[in-house]
Amino acid sequence: MGVYPQLLELLIEHFKQLSGVGEKTAERYALSLIDLDETELKDFSESISLIKQTFQKCTICGHLSESDICSICKDETRNDNLICVVENYKSVFMFEKTAKFKGKYHVLGGLISPIDGINPEDLNIAPLVNRCKDKKMELIIALKPTIEGDTTTLYLKKILEKYNLKITRLSYGIPVGADIDYLDVLTLERAILDRKEVE
Amino acid sequence: MGVYPQLLELLIEHFKQLSGVGEKTAERYALSLIDLDETELKDFSESISLIKQTFQKCTICGHLSESDICSICKDETRNDNLICVVENYKSVFMFEKTAKFKGKYHVLGGLISPIDGINPEDLNIAPLVNRCKDKKMELIIALKPTIEGDTTTLYLKKILEKYNLKITRLSYGIPVGADIDYLDVLTLERAILDRKEVE
Repeated sequence: MGVYPQLLELLIEHFKQLSGVGEKTAERYALSLIDLDETELKDFSESISLIKQTFQKCTICGHLSESDICSICKDETRNDNLICVVENYKSVFMFEKTAKFKGKYHVLGGLISPIDGINPEDLNIAPLVNRCKDKKMELIIALKPTIEGDTTTLYLKKILEKYNLKITRLSYGIPVGADIDYLDVLTLERAILDRKEVE
Repeated sequence: MGVYPQLLELLIEHFKQLSGVGEKTAERYALSLIDLDETELKDFSESISLIKQTFQKCTICGHLSESDICSICKDETRNDNLICVVENYKSVFMFEKTAKFKGKYHVLGGLISPIDGINPEDLNIAPLVNRCKDKKMELIIALKPTIEGDTTTLYLKKILEKYNLKITRLSYGIPVGADIDYLDVLTLERAILDRKEVE
């Protein structure tokens, strides 16, 4: 509509890049920023500017990390012989919230989707094979129950079945079509307990 | 829950300061920031940091402005003898979206609310009296239909009735209890057309 000053228009565009934010919501956020005091705005701006230099990918599991190796991979009290394979770091945070899982993680960074041009070699799969090929361990594949998630699960099962592994997947306690990142914690706990071996 | 790195926790707190954002929504926004590329994050951060130095209050009407006098007060094609009195600059943007109002504005910066310690002298009222006391003009009082809005409307009517003014208020097309800032444009246009003289 062009009623906003240029800087407000810019802020509205930035807010629209966030997950699930439309035009009207972005306007509300941009306008409510102006009511914040100078210190709050400075801190907010600084926090955003620090994101890229603060975070990197853990060289072991691919999770979001503040150093080469993430705090979960470093944690010696956790079970090295149980790896939960997830699509992205948002899933890791969801699992950590349940506080029920005491193994480690492996973050694929996406799902196999030929239609979007995402093939196995685009994902963090080779390091996963290296992590588990010489050990007797369990792999929990925790991907969402969509075509891409199921395709990726079956691909992992296929390339890993020659090793001495138990390969399980989350139970169908997850509502089909839902996104693992935003499940309620109790449903996710059920799904961990009821996990099933990939046939 | 403490599952997020410190910088993510900070970002979550910042997002929670925005109008209508709760814990889970703030988490989603903070996590989706991490997926943006470096340039987008830099621009976003910079836009936020520029807010305080870019905007000031128009010395005539109190609206958000990029210079001493806002673009609406500067606009000579607009009717100087019709002033719309609003609570804050968000209302000004709403009126501008209707593109039906061709007068000027006066932004009070709040509403009279003795319970919150907000008295007439805390608001941008004295400059309004100066703007209209020596002229034959119309004042449209466009405040929300709550106790504070009605109190402020009646107070303005009382201190201004000795001057040669027509004082109107928005019609009750506005749903009672709703916030003017987020009305749909058509309802607001109706309310401008059906405005009524303060009795």
